[in-house]
Amino acid sequence: MKQAIDKSERNIRLIVAYDGSAYHGFQRQDNAITIQQLLEERLATIFGHAVKVTGAARTDTGVHAYGQVVNLTTTGSIPTERIPFAAKSVLPDDIVIRSAAEVPFAFHARFSAKSKIYVYRIYNDPLPDPFLRRYAWHVPQPLDTDAMKQAIRHFVGIHDFSAFRAAGGAPISPIREIIAAHCTDHENKIECVFHGTGFLYHMVRNLTGTLVEVGMQKLESKEMPDILASRDRKRAGVTAPPNGLYLKEIYYE
Amino acid sequence: MKQAIDKSERNIRLIVAYDGSAYHGFQRQDNAITIQQLLEERLATIFGHAVKVTGAARTDTGVHAYGQVVNLTTTGSIPTERIPFAAKSVLPDDIVIRSAAEVPFAFHARFSAKSKIYVYRIYNDPLPDPFLRRYAWHVPQPLDTDAMKQAIRHFVGIHDFSAFRAAGGAPISPIREIIAAHCTDHENKIECVFHGTGFLYHMVRNLTGTLVEVGMQKLESKEMPDILASRDRKRAGVTAPPNGLYLKEIYYE
Repeated sequence: MKQAIDKSERNIRLIVAYDGSAYHGFQRQDNAITIQQLLEERLATIFGHAVKVTGAARTDTGVHAYGQVVNLTTTGSIPTERIPFAAKSVLPDDIVIRSAAEVPFAFHARFSAKSKIYVYRIYNDPLPDPFLRRYAWHVPQPLDTDAMKQAIRHFVGIHDFSAFRAAGGAPISPIREIIAAHCTDHENKIECVFHGTGFLYHMVRNLTGTLVEVGMQKLESKEMPDILASRDRKRAGVTAPPNGLYLKEIYYE
Repeated sequence: MKQAIDKSERNIRLIVAYDGSAYHGFQRQDNAITIQQLLEERLATIFGHAVKVTGAARTDTGVHAYGQVVNLTTTGSIPTERIPFAAKSVLPDDIVIRSAAEVPFAFHARFSAKSKIYVYRIYNDPLPDPFLRRYAWHVPQPLDTDAMKQAIRHFVGIHDFSAFRAAGGAPISPIREIIAAHCTDHENKIECVFHGTGFLYHMVRNLTGTLVEVGMQKLESKEMPDILASRDRKRAGVTAPPNGLYLKEIYYE
């Protein structure tokens, strides 16, 4: 029997930023501290009841977010606009609720998402920067950024991304669409931006590791279509470390 | 009897960047980990003998540096240009030797310094940024940055800075010269830059705390000359927290 919706119940969408350095990723797991677990435990204290948080994306250990989106239902009395400020006093300072909004019950952070933007940051200098050690991949070898900018264009479109998929991922379709992607560089900082409708496990990190090998001239930009067509993980580059990756933004209808 | 200088002895100047979050400041002290102690202990392993490091400035607990300057003498055989790379393998990743150069024996990191630049960073937004929690002062109240830009100009010149000096500092002259100072803002980030020939204990943090009170309209820009003239610490603003302060650069002849 379907339960009637309590009139005082609300579906709340939160935009969450976090420094992933101290966490074992977003998703709840046994014996490891995750963002989801902390959100559920700490937000329960401001809503006055247990909460179940649904996240749009499962970021890995060490991966950061500016714009993770979660939703939760509550019967609590806290005004929606007060949630970010109330959350500030119960969450650790590496997790921040940037905004809260009441949304229709049909809204589901993961299933309603249309596309996501990930940004990968590289610090390209012979010596590391102590302030970026948790926030960018330090690559000491000189990188040919023009070659990287050429190479990333080959990833745009609907492709079979098997060559860029982590071994052992779920047995789902390897076909994904990258709507837009580009790399920019300013002084010794490089950013690669990927806007896609969905991503396979480790896909952004594997694409970025491949771009860096192009930058190092271990691979050529024009090999990218062949690597995609090969569907062979061994043809692509290394998996870039998690600390340079940011879930930037998620788009809904 | 003066000891003859060993022909193989060199005076080495290092430029050091560090994230001060984990340290009890630069200067060695008992029962607390400091930058100086770590440099001396770890660099000894690459020089092959005990080293004594002289720092240009004593940054406080939690204060950062892009351009701390130290010098040390060594009889070790490591080529000067290799020092930053060798240091990378022995130092923790929050301390980086940015460059090393052989300098005349007359060079003393502290006494040879002519002027220093400090930068203070403020994040001015109702909600904090998890990536800046260690790297900027989060001020949630709206700040009038135009008033702050006006106020900082009053600090330029040779003044008695007693009103901005921490209680309990060494009994030295409170007269200091600020050669240049300005605040800039971009979106919700504010930077105040102070270029001076010398600074009293907590002076930059006290000046910044006062500027923020001007930004909050608790104080007026035009009161700055009176506060300076009063030589009264109670007339000036709060001490800004250490995590927004950076020793940016030190100038020598």
